[in-house]
Amino acid sequence: VKKEGLDLTLHAVLDPRFIRGRSLARVVRALVKGGVTIIQMREKDIETREFLARALLVREVTRKARVPFLVNDRVDIAIASRADGVHLGQRDLPAREARRLLGPRAVIGVSTHNLREALKAESDGADYAAIGSVFATTTKSDVTVVGLDMIRRVRSRLHIPLVAIGGITPENARSVIAAGAEGVAAISGLLGSGRVVEAARRYRQAMDMAPNS
Amino acid sequence: VKKEGLDLTLHAVLDPRFIRGRSLARVVRALVKGGVTIIQMREKDIETREFLARALLVREVTRKARVPFLVNDRVDIAIASRADGVHLGQRDLPAREARRLLGPRAVIGVSTHNLREALKAESDGADYAAIGSVFATTTKSDVTVVGLDMIRRVRSRLHIPLVAIGGITPENARSVIAAGAEGVAAISGLLGSGRVVEAARRYRQAMDMAPNS
Repeated sequence: VKKEGLDLTLHAVLDPRFIRGRSLARVVRALVKGGVTIIQMREKDIETREFLARALLVREVTRKARVPFLVNDRVDIAIASRADGVHLGQRDLPAREARRLLGPRAVIGVSTHNLREALKAESDGADYAAIGSVFATTTKSDVTVVGLDMIRRVRSRLHIPLVAIGGITPENARSVIAAGAEGVAAISGLLGSGRVVEAARRYRQAMDMAPNS
Repeated sequence: VKKEGLDLTLHAVLDPRFIRGRSLARVVRALVKGGVTIIQMREKDIETREFLARALLVREVTRKARVPFLVNDRVDIAIASRADGVHLGQRDLPAREARRLLGPRAVIGVSTHNLREALKAESDGADYAAIGSVFATTTKSDVTVVGLDMIRRVRSRLHIPLVAIGGITPENARSVIAAGAEGVAAISGLLGSGRVVEAARRYRQAMDMAPNS
């Protein structure tokens, strides 16, 4: 039950806190060049029209690179920017509603933190579940660290792909894949330094050498 | 060029700052009982899922009362809550995009502050333009007061209906209608006191006695 052509190997989350001062288009081109396979855009404290303008910019770069582009939370922005789908948190629209709005071809991912949420995402029609925070992370301070055991536990019950998020580095990515994740998502690990292409390449190399990939 | 069956006489804006501590359903029932003809829901600092839950509540009450329900800014919430349409600010999605997402039957209104913005709303496919702030208002402190002259000026050039907003009271509503507005919108004037039914009735009486209504 994996959406055809959906490569979840390396999922970059464009968080504005890690973009500040840099050109959004340049950052996205660097991510693509470094080998990310899916790009998600997250914005919170921004006007809708500005969000759309930024989403259209990311859409343009990702379309040329043939990298799927997801919008976090905002289904309206996803539709208006011709994104490939949405990534939904537990306090965003339910995946079932998003599916109704976006149709069967859209990619829908859901952030989950335990088996119950992951199974709910699957039964609601999500194409993948993100699970985390796997390790401690600097991006969010108030997260619960679920560890590799949670990946194994959820993997044994879930049919849709699982993406690990939270504190994933090129060094620990192998253990995450070995535990059953299909891919990894990163924010600060990809965007935290000025060398985005190199950071993405290190993740890709780790993924390409990992057991299940 | 007026959307069939669209009654813009008295437009209530549900602003959370004027609801606090009260039951949302009760406030909406009071507005409906008092005679408002359209209800718009505005939320800003709220999670998407909570926004949807509140919108579904307003949808339930307004459906029973057969009063059109619009969602401010969020086209996704409008679709998910089966609202009749959206009301868009100048920094929200462009009306043309909203129309593409919502279809021809949806009601789309746009907040405007001058002739240029009103004509743009019309050419973008809006069903009505709100114009304001007509008078000084306590709801927003940073607004430009455009006065009755702006209503006359925009009215003489616009083909879609015009709704006056900003500092409208039952006492000055007549002058606004005389200047060419089809209806009025109110926030604090309707929700600022505990007597919502009576407040709405006073507006309705003023509107029913006004020259053009």
